[in-house]
Parts: sequence; structure tokens; C-alpha cells
Amino acid sequence: MAVYTQVNDSDLAAFLDDYEVGHAVSFKGIAEGVENSNYFLQTSQASFILTIYEKRANADDLPYFLTMMEHIAGQGLPSPLPVKDKYGETLKTLLGKPACLITFLTGVSVDDPTPDHCAALGDMLAKMHLALSDFPTERSNDLSIMGWQGLAKQTKDRADEAKPGLGNIIAEELDFLTRHWPATLPKGTIHADLFADNVLFHGHDITGVIDFYFGCTDFLAYDIAVCINAWAFSSDHEFIPERAKRLCEHYDLVRRLSADEINALPILCRGAALRFLLTRLYDMQNQVEGAVVSVKDPLDYLKRLEFHQSVKGASDYVFETR
Amino acid sequence: MAVYTQVNDSDLAAFLDDYEVGHAVSFKGIAEGVENSNYFLQTSQASFILTIYEKRANADDLPYFLTMMEHIAGQGLPSPLPVKDKYGETLKTLLGKPACLITFLTGVSVDDPTPDHCAALGDMLAKMHLALSDFPTERSNDLSIMGWQGLAKQTKDRADEAKPGLGNIIAEELDFLTRHWPATLPKGTIHADLFADNVLFHGHDITGVIDFYFGCTDFLAYDIAVCINAWAFSSDHEFIPERAKRLCEHYDLVRRLSADEINALPILCRGAALRFLLTRLYDMQNQVEGAVVSVKDPLDYLKRLEFHQSVKGASDYVFETR
Repeated sequence: MAVYTQVNDSDLAAFLDDYEVGHAVSFKGIAEGVENSNYFLQTSQASFILTIYEKRANADDLPYFLTMMEHIAGQGLPSPLPVKDKYGETLKTLLGKPACLITFLTGVSVDDPTPDHCAALGDMLAKMHLALSDFPTERSNDLSIMGWQGLAKQTKDRADEAKPGLGNIIAEELDFLTRHWPATLPKGTIHADLFADNVLFHGHDITGVIDFYFGCTDFLAYDIAVCINAWAFSSDHEFIPERAKRLCEHYDLVRRLSADEINALPILCRGAALRFLLTRLYDMQNQVEGAVVSVKDPLDYLKRLEFHQSVKGASDYVFETR
Repeated sequence: MAVYTQVNDSDLAAFLDDYEVGHAVSFKGIAEGVENSNYFLQTSQASFILTIYEKRANADDLPYFLTMMEHIAGQGLPSPLPVKDKYGETLKTLLGKPACLITFLTGVSVDDPTPDHCAALGDMLAKMHLALSDFPTERSNDLSIMGWQGLAKQTKDRADEAKPGLGNIIAEELDFLTRHWPATLPKGTIHADLFADNVLFHGHDITGVIDFYFGCTDFLAYDIAVCINAWAFSSDHEFIPERAKRLCEHYDLVRRLSADEINALPILCRGAALRFLLTRLYDMQNQVEGAVVSVKDPLDYLKRLEFHQSVKGASDYVFETR
């Protein structure tokens, strides 16, 4: 959450020379995104975000993420549009690093979403899934079961430092998920990281969905499970059924959920909780000296996992009319 | 250079309730300023910077800085205007910390100023000094001779870690400056920290002077000396006479410099170089674990100090016509 690469006025002017977006009127590094440097740029024509991709970004995947954004924005949904330079390129180089200019979206992310925000999210998520249904490129989800197994192995030795017994809890859950993970749900291109800070609102209207850098091909309903984990719990990590139900209800109004998808929600939610538990645990164990990023507590997701383990069934998450 | 205090959407909405500036349309933490948290805020009416003053800011001095900004902006110069809330207050509290909303100024700071930028700076600095000539409040410069003596004492034991012999160089310079520091130059309210990142440009026109948090009462010509140190050296720390000369020439066109002021420039420049050498040395020796601020090299200012020690006289800095 910082600016890792300093871009000065002459670097910027040279970079903008390749574009037809006017000249810089304002340029500020912004504290957004965890792994990349982001600048807010106003030109004489419009406002943009300039992103410089730092080491942790997999440069090979950047064209996938950018075309995914183009695809969604191209269907009229409020995702940032990567801006083409004079030669039709969106992925550029700045100070030796991959860089991209995207359109700036207004809106404010909500910290403690209401059920109405969740309804808008469900609606938008389904629209995004439909918009991406003809997106031709596939990218496997490296943070699904296989990825979790790798992370569990890497974090195992010191897992109990976060909480006694955590290593065993993770191993048992992973064993359960490996045996019961669905095989045949509808797949498509998903966001896979649709946390509240990646959605911008004006009131209860979504004005922007951002940060597609975990986008991948996976079960569409897994995206809902990520959202339930990210949006349907209070700041004290208590489940708020109304939020999940409104989310699922409004998703279903746009893209009808199958009975299989609904029935899979409890296990998908367990998987999503384990995913964020593991990545947070990994980040906690692998803090970079002097890093700017504040480490998030993995145990927030242990609480969610325990909730999902305890549910009676999918009816705990979804609307009652089905 | 980061956001230390996280403000969420409901904190922000409650804060804005006291103002008549419309509702938030966009809100991003920006990587600007060293000691405070800053947010870029677009409302339905205008753009602002929201600053939250963190521990290192002296809360008692904030009213001084804010009225100084009001005074300058009130005379039509491009400094940010602290925004009054419904009750006429500019200094507010947010999340238990002092906070202020100021108007947003467009423009881009220049990393490597041209002589034309320096001419614009000289012109603007003199206009600011004139605009502040009837500013009634005084604040002593705690980073003048007395402050340097304190910093020299605090940094002495480990000064030679930065460069062998540095402790002695500082002691001797401080001794020289103490004996020769001017006593009777014209005084007034000065910026005292007018580095290139505190000046915003459109082309060669200044659109903003920002960051008045070192503002104080001191010799007006000392402000010029700070600017010569900050603006008239290359990125390799070589003096560029043309920059200093254009700066002084255009200052003088707006506010005529006395012969005493001109003759004092070499010693004032030595003082300003020592000031930044000492504060950088102090910051280097007192790095906070996990701090976000990148430490600047104190030796950049040793090089400047050595240059100022070597000059023949004021004619090395100023226009030749006087």
C-alpha cells in the first residue's frame, strides 16, 4: 500500500508522449493496492490511474488481466478500461517495469456494507460473470486446492505461532476440502478477490469494480463464496445472514443459480475462508523487512471457516424462496 | 509518505457532515507529506486534500500554519485554503486526531527544475513574503541556530558513522555560523521548507505552493537560501549558477533585496545547508522500525555546504547587474 517506484515529472511526460490523453495537470502517488505502485493522474483531458507492476506481479499474466478488464468495460460494466497508446498498446514499460494507464472511476468503497450494498454486489457480480461468458482466454486459479496445499506445506512449521493447533486445523480442513471439493459446477472467468475495497459506490450504486489481478477461470459460485466471506461478516467476524441472502438473491435475479451451485455454497465458503487464512498466514510469516504493507490477521478467516463448518446447509446463505 | 490513519467511508461521511462541501465522490489515500496522513477527496462540489496530523506534528502550532495558509490564499496566491466548516472552524478532529480539509491545487512538481522554473519560484517567493508582510502572528524558527546546536549535540556521537570526520565538520561550521550569523536582516514570515516537491507547476507557471508546516518568523533572505540549496543544485549536487541567479533576479524584481541581504547570502546558504544536513542526519540515526519514510542522505547537504564554504562571495549566487 504505497508507491514503490518514484516517477518524476520528466519520466511521466516521456511516458505520456506515447498517448493521446493530453498533458499532466496533477499527479499523486496513491496508497492503494498491495503489490503495485499506483498514481492518480489528471490530464488536460481526463483522470486516470497509472499502475506500475512491481516484482511480485507475474508479468506473463498481465495481458490476461488487461484484456479481462477491457472485456468487462467493453460491455458497459464499470470496470477500469486500459488505455491504448498511439500504437494500440495497453501494456507499456515505465522505468524498466511493466506499466499501464487505466481510466479513473469515481466512487468510495464501503467499510461496513449494508444489505443494500450486498444486493448491488450480487447484481454486479452476476452481470460480470455473464459479460465474461464469452471471454476466450483461460487462466487456472493458482490459489485453489492445489495452491492451498502448497501454502499449507509452506506455513505448516510455524502455523501454531499464530494460534496453538492451527497447523492441524488447516491440515484437517484441507483434507476434507480435497475429498469433497466439487468437480462439475459451472465454470467461467471470475474476479476471485472481490473484497469491499475493490468495489466503489455512489450511495448504493456500484460505480466501479477494480483490481482484477487475481482474475482466473474457476467455478462461478466460488466468486460468490469469496464475496460471502468478504462482505457478509461484521467487523467482529460475526456472520450477518441478511447480507449473504441479499447478495445471493440479487445474483440469482441476473444469473440463475443451479441447485448444485446453491448446495455447494457451504463447501465453497469453507474453501474461500481457507484461501484467505492461508495467504494471510503466509504473508504474516514472510514479512519483508521495511515493507509498507500492514499484515492482516489470518485468524479473522479462521473465525469465518469455523462458521462455515458449523452451518446446517446452503439455506444459511441463500434466500428462502428457493 | 503514507497513510498512517485509515479513514473509512462512515468516518468520512460523519466528518463531512460538518461541512457544506457536498458528499464524497472519490477518496484515496495519497503518498504525500512525510509526517501526516493525506487523502485526495473529490466531493460533488470540488476537490480537496484531507490532512490528519499525526504524532510528530505540534498541535499547538497548527492554528498558526492554517492561518498562514489562509492569509496567503486570501491575497490571491496559489496556496491551499483551509476550508471552514458550518461553524467557521478549520481545525477539526477526526478519529481523535487534529485534521483539516484544504482546497486541492492542480499542478505537477518538477524533479529537475530549469532556470525558468527557478525564475517563477523567485517571483512567487517574493510575492509570498509581501503577502505575509502584514501577517500578525510570530513563530520563532526552531530550526535556526539554536535548533542546530541541539541537533548537533544529539547527532554528535554517531555522526562519523555517516562519514569519518563529519562530527568535527559540523562542530566547526556551527561555531563559525554562531559567530557570524546575521543579526539585523529584514525579518518576516517565511516558508522555510520550499523544496521542489512543495511547488506545483503547469508548464513554467506556479499553480500551487504547499506544505507550510515549517512556516516561521525569520530572515526573509533565509528563505531564498533554503531555495538555493533546494533548487540550484543538480541531481549530482553540482551548483548550477543560472538557477540561483534567475531565482534571485526574479525575487528582486518583486521585492527589492538590500545590499545587506545580498551580502549575507553565502552565510545564509551555509546555514540552510547545515540545517538539512543535521535534520537528515538526525532522521537517519533515529529511523523508526517499520517506518514508511525513505531516509534521505545527509551527505547531499555536506556537498552543498562545502560549495557554499568555497564561494568567493554573494556574486556567485546573484544576478550580475547589482
